[in-house]
Amino acid sequence: LWTGCMMRDIMLKAKPKNAARFVWMEGGDNPANGPYGTSVRLCWVMDPERSIMLAYKQNGSFLSPDHGRPFRAIIPGVIGGRSVKWLKKIIISDVPSNNWYHYFDNRVLPTMVTPEEAKKNKQWWKDERYALYDMAVQSAIWKPSNNETVTVDGEDDDNTVSVSGYASNGAGVRVGRVEVSLDKGRTWKLADIDYPEDRYREAGHIKLFGGLVNVCDRMSCLCWCFWKISIPKKELFVAKDIVVRAMDERMCIQPRDMYWNVTSMMNNWWYRVAIRKDGPNVIRFEHPVLANKKGG
Amino acid sequence: LWTGCMMRDIMLKAKPKNAARFVWMEGGDNPANGPYGTSVRLCWVMDPERSIMLAYKQNGSFLSPDHGRPFRAIIPGVIGGRSVKWLKKIIISDVPSNNWYHYFDNRVLPTMVTPEEAKKNKQWWKDERYALYDMAVQSAIWKPSNNETVTVDGEDDDNTVSVSGYASNGAGVRVGRVEVSLDKGRTWKLADIDYPEDRYREAGHIKLFGGLVNVCDRMSCLCWCFWKISIPKKELFVAKDIVVRAMDERMCIQPRDMYWNVTSMMNNWWYRVAIRKDGPNVIRFEHPVLANKKGG
Repeated sequence: LWTGCMMRDIMLKAKPKNAARFVWMEGGDNPANGPYGTSVRLCWVMDPERSIMLAYKQNGSFLSPDHGRPFRAIIPGVIGGRSVKWLKKIIISDVPSNNWYHYFDNRVLPTMVTPEEAKKNKQWWKDERYALYDMAVQSAIWKPSNNETVTVDGEDDDNTVSVSGYASNGAGVRVGRVEVSLDKGRTWKLADIDYPEDRYREAGHIKLFGGLVNVCDRMSCLCWCFWKISIPKKELFVAKDIVVRAMDERMCIQPRDMYWNVTSMMNNWWYRVAIRKDGPNVIRFEHPVLANKKGG
Repeated sequence: LWTGCMMRDIMLKAKPKNAARFVWMEGGDNPANGPYGTSVRLCWVMDPERSIMLAYKQNGSFLSPDHGRPFRAIIPGVIGGRSVKWLKKIIISDVPSNNWYHYFDNRVLPTMVTPEEAKKNKQWWKDERYALYDMAVQSAIWKPSNNETVTVDGEDDDNTVSVSGYASNGAGVRVGRVEVSLDKGRTWKLADIDYPEDRYREAGHIKLFGGLVNVCDRMSCLCWCFWKISIPKKELFVAKDIVVRAMDERMCIQPRDMYWNVTSMMNNWWYRVAIRKDGPNVIRFEHPVLANKKGG
């Protein structure tokens, strides 16, 4: 939970000109190519649903140096690289930031642009349409965890295994449904979804960490949600894998396949847990990546 | 081009209470289940980028009865069913519209909900997460048209065929790229995109049909765009089909496969034109659907 002021209020005081379109931010750090800087659209800053703020506290404590002391931007639903830390300058402009990192970081170049072409032709990096802002709809399986095993007692076993995970989306758009398949996407089951941030809405305007939780003033959904489904053991026993995909309220769905791109960013294809047979009545779950592991 | 007033200005005069979340609209018509009505989010109406208006003229003429005379809502980027015609009532509420058509029209139920289940269990229709608002990213091929033929003169023919079409998206989000494949999605070529509505931006605040074209006040992209690419004849000669897909600025991509749903709405899988051989050096293009044809 962040404490600070809405960047919208700062803009209202600054009274941007009619031609103003972008808010540039620049940090007080000094990496290889000068201070880190980037920009977002002014209309997003002005939209209360986007909840873009300038924060000085996190969970009630002043920001630690690692988290951007004394000031940082908080831009929910958008790739982290836009939430500039150690914020030193805010500039309002009619064009996007010209900072080195704004151009050469956080981009998804078209799939046919090879590493060689991307290196040779800098123009690919300057097309604002390929810049990453809003996160894409995403889901993953948490439980069963990697290498977890389940014993299936018999053909008529009707015990179930609880399969669960998280899903998230950008731009404040709610995850509308999460679906699970045991036959590589031929048929799907609907999972239940819990939206923890709705608890804050139900609670109303409460004081927490000396700040006001004001999530109830907006409809946008800016946090992860959690999904869960019970699957009969005997169905898992005959399946090759568990696949999950989410669809958002705008009916955008996670794609089946990866979108190859030179920066390897923003890929959100179906998450798959393989089911291995470990003996005649034991199955073992195998995740594609391991949390907290090197290379995971 | 529409003339009217912004619905936002009406809301500002109405001064909605803190708890207000939805704007209900009801028409003056009278179909089988009472007057047509639906609702959209109040925060969308308040967002200048959404450009939601109450119109009384179209291209400078008062609305014809077919187009909703005397007043209709214009809600760009959103499924047409929300732009209520013959508008008679506007109600501000904390909940979505309870109109029959709001529940039982314009929904994408989860893929495992069969027609029987949808008929039996009305609760599926009342979950607002399955209601359709913003359009999904979409693209199609216009040229070559259906049954058009091309003669390929020889193996070393380097003449090209111009392949073109349109792409569109909802929620004011720009189509970021359009890609074409000749090998069923294994590799892709990048098409050029033209955004005709940007012409209005470049022109500034001009008077047209007695109204002010004010598209230059916003960054959202609410109209179709057109794409084009030249493909060598000899590449088309050896290909089985031309497939097109679009990706939006949020990196949402058209899916490869359809999402089956009971209302058969909002499907936006890759558009495919088949290439047939009509003789030793003639190819013919075959579209999946025909414009202006019964059943097309």
